[in-house]
Amino acid sequence: MRKTRLEAFSDGVIAIIITIMVLELKIPEGTSSDDLQPLIPIFLTYTLSFVYIAIYWVNHHHLLHVVKRISAGIMWANINLLFWLSLVPFATGWMGKNHFEPLPVTIYSVLMVLCGIAYTILQQTIAVCHKDDTELKAFMQSQSHKGIISLVAYVTAIPLAYINTIFSGVIFIFVAVMWLIPDKKSEQIEND
Amino acid sequence: MRKTRLEAFSDGVIAIIITIMVLELKIPEGTSSDDLQPLIPIFLTYTLSFVYIAIYWVNHHHLLHVVKRISAGIMWANINLLFWLSLVPFATGWMGKNHFEPLPVTIYSVLMVLCGIAYTILQQTIAVCHKDDTELKAFMQSQSHKGIISLVAYVTAIPLAYINTIFSGVIFIFVAVMWLIPDKKSEQIEND
Amino acid sequence: MRKTRLEAFSDGVIAIIITIMVLELKIPEGTSSDDLQPLIPIFLTYTLSFVYIAIYWVNHHHLLHVVKRISAGIMWANINLLFWLSLVPFATGWMGKNHFEPLPVTIYSVLMVLCGIAYTILQQTIAVCHKDDTELKAFMQSQSHKGIISLVAYVTAIPLAYINTIFSGVIFIFVAVMWLIPDKKSEQIEND
Amino acid sequence: MRKTRLEAFSDGVIAIIITIMVLELKIPEGTSSDDLQPLIPIFLTYTLSFVYIAIYWVNHHHLLHVVKRISAGIMWANINLLFWLSLVPFATGWMGKNHFEPLPVTIYSVLMVLCGIAYTILQQTIAVCHKDDTELKAFMQSQSHKGIISLVAYVTAIPLAYINTIFSGVIFIFVAVMWLIPDKKSEQIEND
Repeated sequence: MRKTRLEAFSDGVIAIIITIMVLELKIPEGTSSDDLQPLIPIFLTYTLSFVYIAIYWVNHHHLLHVVKRISAGIMWANINLLFWLSLVPFATGWMGKNHFEPLPVTIYSVLMVLCGIAYTILQQTIAVCHKDDTELKAFMQSQSHKGIISLVAYVTAIPLAYINTIFSGVIFIFVAVMWLIPDKKSEQIEND
Repeated sequence: MRKTRLEAFSDGVIAIIITIMVLELKIPEGTSSDDLQPLIPIFLTYTLSFVYIAIYWVNHHHLLHVVKRISAGIMWANINLLFWLSLVPFATGWMGKNHFEPLPVTIYSVLMVLCGIAYTILQQTIAVCHKDDTELKAFMQSQSHKGIISLVAYVTAIPLAYINTIFSGVIFIFVAVMWLIPDKKSEQIEND
Repeated sequence: MRKTRLEAFSDGVIAIIITIMVLELKIPEGTSSDDLQPLIPIFLTYTLSFVYIAIYWVNHHHLLHVVKRISAGIMWANINLLFWLSLVPFATGWMGKNHFEPLPVTIYSVLMVLCGIAYTILQQTIAVCHKDDTELKAFMQSQSHKGIISLVAYVTAIPLAYINTIFSGVIFIFVAVMWLIPDKKSEQIEND
Repeated sequence: MRKTRLEAFSDGVIAIIITIMVLELKIPEGTSSDDLQPLIPIFLTYTLSFVYIAIYWVNHHHLLHVVKRISAGIMWANINLLFWLSLVPFATGWMGKNHFEPLPVTIYSVLMVLCGIAYTILQQTIAVCHKDDTELKAFMQSQSHKGIISLVAYVTAIPLAYINTIFSGVIFIFVAVMWLIPDKKSEQIEND
């Protein structure tokens, strides 16, 4: 029961975050294809952030699937994650509106690191409450590689943004693709 | 359990998409009936898109009703569908604000084709996971005619928009009405 | 299962409708009490519409509580109700922004009549599917008086708006209060 | 069943309230760190209100966890709470946009008092329906100290805002921290 409501609230917040980002795609006044052109970088960042938020939702879904008990700590670790995710529309909009300038790209990278840390805190809080749960441990271990690579990638994207923001963009896409590739190991754990 | 959460997240995203479209109906400054007049095309496109999104929700509801297992593939095919649907408010607003000019109508048609393809991908991904499910197969077959007609209609609406956008509008209404007519066959399958 | 999802989607849409209305309370530039004054009529209409939408949610909740089967007709009658409710934020904002001018008050009344009709259609569609359900019949009969009074009141509010919109305002408040008074009869039916 | 839907609707409304606040973080035109600076007070108030709304959600979650029956009174007491919470984004935005001027801080404090009263009314309405429920009584008593301290703190923050709004800010943070500290007693009650 309690887990259901935690999931429902998280689903609600994530659904709103992922959808309000599209409001940054302001409707142009004109109707020629030239009027659409300035929207292209906004559309690209929207797509990137949509995929990122979706990855968080999928991982959140997997993580809570193996959870059995909800403590106050888990609730607050979850709220902490939602807080950082709720800033993604702002960082996305700023980056898209300004054609990938160094500072917005840096802020986006930093936010992604903070979201990653918040997710790790949630994982650890859950792990503390489920010490003897081998299924949960196996699932977390199967994810830990991707998590570490992501954090390293985001941190690397920050200095690269000051050389050329295209490098940072490539890193962001690489992280998204890495998470999109289905993980046989973690899926197997759940199906067991 | 896992299916419940996929449905809940989809319901949340679709509920937001269908509702934020109404924000394009900007409140006029004046209070005469003349102030309402420029809102009429926006209201009409809002109504059209509301019906379209509702049709997707109803079909999504029917489709997931017969689903038994959720794979990573189904989750991502579902997220892909939600992504394209999330662009409907933008395309709707652009078309409504500009009194059905050719380019916005084309973009709307293209988006509808992409939503249709995304829905078909979701159907196929589900079909792969439920190979021996005759109920699901029967349901999909009962829907496939309408799906093909819709795609053909949307593609036809694109060149017609450059002759007269009224033709495209008629096609959009025809597709909506076609889906609104209850399908005895698919309802029967579910009630069995 | 199917009823759960219909309720979840309706809850999502109604939750968004009731909440986005508050976005019309635009944050003033200044910080004196004079800056708050123009917000008072907007706040009052927000409160009125919040109560109305809440009444619809409560009645929808009661109505679906006694429903056993969901047909395609019920789904579409429900979507039809949600469509008209989704226009309430617009009508509310227009009425509040313009200090209760005749035309916005008329549009608000007309919308309320349309919402009432949509609710009645939903009731009747449910009744057709539950012919032998005496509990449902008793519940609907216990509500029908209030429903008829509301419709008459809204229709009366339209000509009165052209005499003095205060009369219409009083009628709106009267309808809200009438629904807020708990109905012993219908509550008893549910608890049986 | 009925409790589930009350929770789902509340979750939806609270999820939207907590998320639309972030829309006040308007995307700056420039890309220098100077452009971010005016957003700092808005970000701080956003964080504060996010924590407050989250606390309400957590408490609402705990409170309804021990509830067994839903009456019309509980539904309306809950809607009343949601109404006052729905005004938090407005009060937050006004306070953040104006660098903590006395009047916005006062309005924020008054709103917090009203939210606190609405929560107390909800608690009392639930208590009336669950007279013999010792678990519920124990839970409410464990919370009552924090509730009283919060109300006193908010009321104190009002005159202090006219001396220096920093005092009010410190009080707001103190209340948030107090609720964030896990309450062993109330957690124990639930786990029993």
